Order: sequence, then structure tokens, then C-alpha cells
Amino acid sequence: MKAYTELSVEELQELRKDLTAKYKEFQDRELNLNMSRGKPCVDQLDISMGMMDVLTSDADLTDEDGTDCRNYGVLDGIPEAKELMGAMMEVPADNLLIYGNSSLNVMYDTISRSYTHGVMGQTPWCKLDQVKFICVVPGYDRHFAITQYFGIENVCVPMLEDGPDMDMVEQLVSSDESIKGIWCVPKYSNPTGNSYSDEVVRRFARLKPAAKDFRIYWDNAYTIHHLYDDDQDQLIEILAECKKAGNPDMVYKFASTSKVSFPGSGIACLATSLNNLEDIKKQLKIQTIGHDKVNQLRHVRFFGDINGMKEHMRKHADILRPKFEAVLEILDRELSGLGIATWTKPKGGYFISFNTLDGCAKQVVSRCAKAGVVMTPAGATYPGGKDPKDANIRIAPSFPPAEDLKVAAELLTVCVKLVSVEKLLTRQGATL
Amino acid sequence: MKAYTELSVEELQELRKDLTAKYKEFQDRELNLNMSRGKPCVDQLDISMGMMDVLTSDADLTDEDGTDCRNYGVLDGIPEAKELMGAMMEVPADNLLIYGNSSLNVMYDTISRSYTHGVMGQTPWCKLDQVKFICVVPGYDRHFAITQYFGIENVCVPMLEDGPDMDMVEQLVSSDESIKGIWCVPKYSNPTGNSYSDEVVRRFARLKPAAKDFRIYWDNAYTIHHLYDDDQDQLIEILAECKKAGNPDMVYKFASTSKVSFPGSGIACLATSLNNLEDIKKQLKIQTIGHDKVNQLRHVRFFGDINGMKEHMRKHADILRPKFEAVLEILDRELSGLGIATWTKPKGGYFISFNTLDGCAKQVVSRCAKAGVVMTPAGATYPGGKDPKDANIRIAPSFPPAEDLKVAAELLTVCVKLVSVEKLLTRQGATL
Repeated sequence: MKAYTELSVEELQELRKDLTAKYKEFQDRELNLNMSRGKPCVDQLDISMGMMDVLTSDADLTDEDGTDCRNYGVLDGIPEAKELMGAMMEVPADNLLIYGNSSLNVMYDTISRSYTHGVMGQTPWCKLDQVKFICVVPGYDRHFAITQYFGIENVCVPMLEDGPDMDMVEQLVSSDESIKGIWCVPKYSNPTGNSYSDEVVRRFARLKPAAKDFRIYWDNAYTIHHLYDDDQDQLIEILAECKKAGNPDMVYKFASTSKVSFPGSGIACLATSLNNLEDIKKQLKIQTIGHDKVNQLRHVRFFGDINGMKEHMRKHADILRPKFEAVLEILDRELSGLGIATWTKPKGGYFISFNTLDGCAKQVVSRCAKAGVVMTPAGATYPGGKDPKDANIRIAPSFPPAEDLKVAAELLTVCVKLVSVEKLLTRQGATL
Repeated sequence: MKAYTELSVEELQELRKDLTAKYKEFQDRELNLNMSRGKPCVDQLDISMGMMDVLTSDADLTDEDGTDCRNYGVLDGIPEAKELMGAMMEVPADNLLIYGNSSLNVMYDTISRSYTHGVMGQTPWCKLDQVKFICVVPGYDRHFAITQYFGIENVCVPMLEDGPDMDMVEQLVSSDESIKGIWCVPKYSNPTGNSYSDEVVRRFARLKPAAKDFRIYWDNAYTIHHLYDDDQDQLIEILAECKKAGNPDMVYKFASTSKVSFPGSGIACLATSLNNLEDIKKQLKIQTIGHDKVNQLRHVRFFGDINGMKEHMRKHADILRPKFEAVLEILDRELSGLGIATWTKPKGGYFISFNTLDGCAKQVVSRCAKAGVVMTPAGATYPGGKDPKDANIRIAPSFPPAEDLKVAAELLTVCVKLVSVEKLLTRQGATL
């Protein structure tokens, strides 16, 4: 098959006819599928159902310290939950705060606290004329939405193969005092699926920020979310690396069990230096008496320890891997060598990042929708929902059943071809 | 027994000798008791253990709408939880948002949002030179701590027999645009235990605030927390009353199941007008994808409906009532007619409010502590921990076992007598 870019107007027009017919066939099937969000599927939820049986009415609900988990108290989490989540986050339990059910909520609260009260004695951001945040793009829409909501200017830095463009990051962070943070998903990144290299992590740890209250927002959402047993990305641990580099307070690390146990009923954490923890607890003790300790205990009793958790993640992988592979197989079969698309092949996480020809993503997503398949809105991976190239589409293979997923992926390839053909025709001045 | 105030110096000195000996006896017992916080006791926690069995691995975790409660989604709470909590809060389910495990957290977030983004389009408080809040005193320390933390000036208004001094409230609210809210515990108030009269609630609903963004923070923490079946306080419902009075958006109502099911593992709510809800959701959707729906479902399955919840509250009452009565019996027996103390006799809630002679509360609490009984710090019921009269002590009878409680109450009366005698001697110029 020749690349579409090498086809003549006539060939393209012929192709367009075929593709339009194929697209019509999909429309006639009246599909109703959703590949829009990184939601676990029912099979994945089912593997955690044992969690519902570990704390019944005959269970002892006392933690290691003798605290009755059913009553008020314990601001930072019960010791065994800190131990478990510390192991998951690769930090000592002492560097951890356990929160409620959502790491997004923890990140929001972290921005909000910095805005209202400042970071470790620095001026609250609400008193500053300008505050900026670096957004690695494509990235996670909900990150960008938080900073945007607080009137913080989102500054884009491109994601490269091995992490953000660190030349740009270093230049921005060291020269501009109004840059207060950077949103990162360092491992199996949302949406690209790739991970930061050792070199990138080291350069992060060695940043020389102009702002004393600059913090790296290290959202390690997919820290143990591998697809393969024998081929996993491993990151240098950023807290330890920052300490080594003389920047012990420069990072907040976030994670949760949302995609380990149940989304919405998991436990979320923040890991950071003792100085930062002390600063944060001043606020936290005003905000709450404590988070849900029964649910913390439930997680500990179910997983046992980090090995139990990793074993559990293998079950998730067994469900997710075939889905990723099915989508990748279809993309490969249908789009390889056509010169109209590129995509990532992640070894973990929840997403495949897909790039169309410039100016095609919105149209592709719209065509998919009109044939009954909801994709993540094109542009969603950029601040304000604006992808300057209109090229990136996030594919979330986790939720639909395998058969539906294949249909959706086939439809996607038809839409990509059709929209690309029309784009190429238009470029050549042909009337559609 | 004569009132202490009528005793001669000699009589007081004799009394002091006796009381000092009695106090010494308590010290020799090396007590270690705690009456400091409104924590449910173990027996109370035990009555909710059935909740641990309603959602096991064979349970259907789907809500009324067909939503799988184990997965992401549902920002405002599952319908059956809104129904249940609406009944508890005496508002339609549509006026409700279900949050996480802590109403304190909801109140903090409400203040924080008003501070960062303003209330329904009004100027964010962080952009104003001055923001004030009315604190009904004595009141709940954690309320006052939130506004203080945000640099908001806490303005005290005294709690009278039937609610706050409404002449003062009306005057302040209508004349000062910087007054943005008032902290209330309208039913079985913390710490006085009394409830707002119909007249007071009506005057609240008819306030004419100078500030468009003035809101009543109506913390209905003890809405169904009666001690007696046949003698209960009933309040006029404030949301409906505000609507009737042409102030539909003027109130935020808060509640949780912290003292119904498990503190720290319950569900918390905010009830308010649809306009306010719309305003709040703009923020909430940035902060989280949703709260813990499994725990919402657990509560619904356990209680069934509001009748089940009320039945459950009778079990709490059966445990708490004897404790309240035991303390009140001792206070009555030991202190009645002495002219050195007054106290409330609540029909619900978690506290008895106790007043010493002016200038004695700190000393009494300190003496109790030195004999091994921890009371709520004197002054805690006032903003900044400063009771101008140094007279109020909050008694929390719920947590200690009945026998311990009696010992603690006996000790309290000895300390009150001793400190009062010394105060009266000093007033009369005697050397101690």
C-alpha cells in the first residue's frame, strides 16, 4: 500500500468513495460505544470484590497502634496504610499523608492551599499578579483544568520520547519567578504512555527554580500499572533524587488506588519532604479531623503488602493487555505505512496517544461520534482544550468489552482514513 | 447548704482544707480519663457494625440509576443516598450534594471556595480588604478555626436561651457589608445543647444582609441526635423558611452521619438552593470526579430509609442518655444552690455547657488535668480560644464508660468548688 501522501487526486477520490461506503456501514450498525475515559472495565472491578469481605462485623477494626478505626482521629493515616502506600510510592511511610478517595482532590487542595496560604511561608499566590504553571503536552486535562480554574497561566512544554523537553523546562523554571509548578505524569504518561528517562528525572531533581515555592507536581498515577511482567518501565525515585540534588522540598508526589481497587472508593496519598508535610498539616488539621480509616484498613487487609498489591496488578494487566494489543494490532494493520497517523505503544497505564495529520483530530472524533463511538474530545489533552495542531487523540481502551473495542478501533481507522483523504484532497485544491 | 458567696473567710478557709484533701484523694487514684471531645463511645460504634455486612462480595453494587458504584462518576451523590440524607436534613433530595466523610471538610471547602472564587459571581474574599464572620459563642472551636485560618475576623455574638442574640445579628448583618457569614449549630447546639426557637429561625430567614454574598452556615450536626423519645426539640426548616422570606440563596446547611454511623467513615452533605448548588458544582467538578459511592450505598443499604435511621438513633440515645443523666445528677447533687456554677440540661446532642464563676474555668480545667481527667480546654468554645469571662467549660459525656464518667464528674465538682473557694477568698483579700 502506498502512503496516502503519494496518491493522486483521482486515487484519493476513488479511495474516498470506498471509505465513505465503509463509514456508512458503521453508521448503519447504530453503535453506542465509549472509548473516552480511563475507566476500568467491569472485569477489572470484579477482581477487587474480595475487598468487600475483609472487614465484616466480626472483624477487628483496630489498627497497629491500637486506634479504633471506627472513631474520630488520625490526621495522616493509619500506620499500616502508610506502610503499604509508601511501598507503592517507593518512599518511606514517614513521608506520606493518606487522604480521602481521590488524588485529583489532593492536587486541587494543594493548589488551593498554595493560592490561599502560600507554600512554606512564601506569598500566597492569590496576592501575586501573575502565577504560571508548566503543562507537559499532550497531558491530563483535569490537571490543566485545576490551574486554569485558579487563573494560573498554563504554559505548554512538549512531551518528547523520554519525557518533557527539559531544555525548555530548565529555561522556564530558572528564569521566571512566576512559574510555581509543573504538572507531570512521569510513568506511563497520560496520554502518551511513555515514561521519563533516568536523565530526565535527574534533570528534574537538579532544577534551579527562580521561585522558592516552585514545586514539581509528580502525579504517579500509573506507578504499578504495568501491562507486561517482563518488560516494565522503571523510574528513578524523585523524592530521593531531589534530596540528593539539594532540592529536598521541591516535589509533591501523588498517587491513589483508584485503578488498583475501586475508582471513587480507593485511597489517595501525597508523599513529600517532612518540611512540606509540616506545612501541609497546618492546613489539613483545620480542614478535617481525619480521612476514612476503615477504608484504609480495608485496603491493607485486602492487599496485605506491596507484593499482594503487585500480584493484584497482574490481574488488571491480564485484562488490559489484550485490549491494548487488539487496538494496536488494528492500528498497525489498517494505518501502517499510510503516512497519515502515528501512535504510541505503551507498556503500561491507560492510554494510547494517537496523532493524525495536522488539522484532522477534531474531524476524526466528530465522525466517530456520528457513528456512535465516543472518543475523548480532540484537544482535551491540551490546556483549554486547544491542541494547536489539532492532531492528538487519546485512545482509552480499558472500559469497553473486547469485541466492542475492536469495532470502535476499526471505525476509528476508517474515520482517520476518510478525514485524511479529504484533508489531502483539499490541500491539492480538489473540491469535495 | 449555704451559697459559697455567703460564706465568711473562715468558713471558706475550712472548706478549702476539706476540698484540698478530697482533691488529693482523686490525685492519688492516678486517673486517666478523657471528657474532652464529642466522640461516640465503643458501645455506640458497635451498634453500627451491621453496616460492615451489607455490602459483601455477593452484593449488587449498582445504584437506582443503574450506575456501578465501584467505578468513576456521579459528582453529587447516588440518588438513593440523596433521598436518605435529604430526609435526614429535611430538604428535597434535589437540594443536596453528597460529599466525602466529613462535614467539617465541606465547610472548610465552602469557605475556601468563597475565598478563592467568591459566591455566585461576587468578589472573591481574597480580593477584599476585610471579611468578617459572626461566631455564636460559646460555640464550636473548629468552626472558628476555619475562618481564623483564612484571616477572617471572627465577631462574637452571645448565645441566649433560645438562640443567638438576634438583635445583634440583625444589626451586624444589615449594616456591615464585610460580614459574609455566621456559624450556627442550630439544634442541640455545641456546646450549650439548646436549640433555636421558631422566632429565632424566622428572624434568621428574614435577615436583610448588606452583603449579597452573606450566607448562613447552618451546621445541623445534631439534627436527629435526640436523647429522649417523648421530649425532642424541633426546628423550623431553614431552607424553606428562607425561600418563603424571599432569601432563597442565603443558607448553606451541613450535616453528616459521623455520629450516626462511624465518625470518619460516614457521609457528609451540603443542602442549599439550586442556584447555590450550580455555583458550587462549577468548582466541585474541578476538584473531584466524585466521592465514595460504595460508602454511600453501604449507608443506604444499612439504614434503608429515614425511619431506619431514626430507629438507629434511639440506640444511640439509649447509650448516651444515662451518661448525660449521670453527669447532671452529680452536678445537681454537688453544686446546686452554691452560687458558683450554672449548666445546661440538653435534650440532645453531645455536650453540656458549664459555667463557673468568672475567671475560674481555666483553673478548673487545669486542676482536673492534674488529677488525670482531660476536659476540653477552657476558652475552646470562643474564637482564638479566648473566653473573655474565663467561665465556660464544655462537658462531653459521650466517650468515657459510665463508671469513669461518674468519677470524672465528681472530680470536676471538687475542682469547681476548690477553685471557686479560692477565687472567693482572693476576692475578700485573704491570702491563700
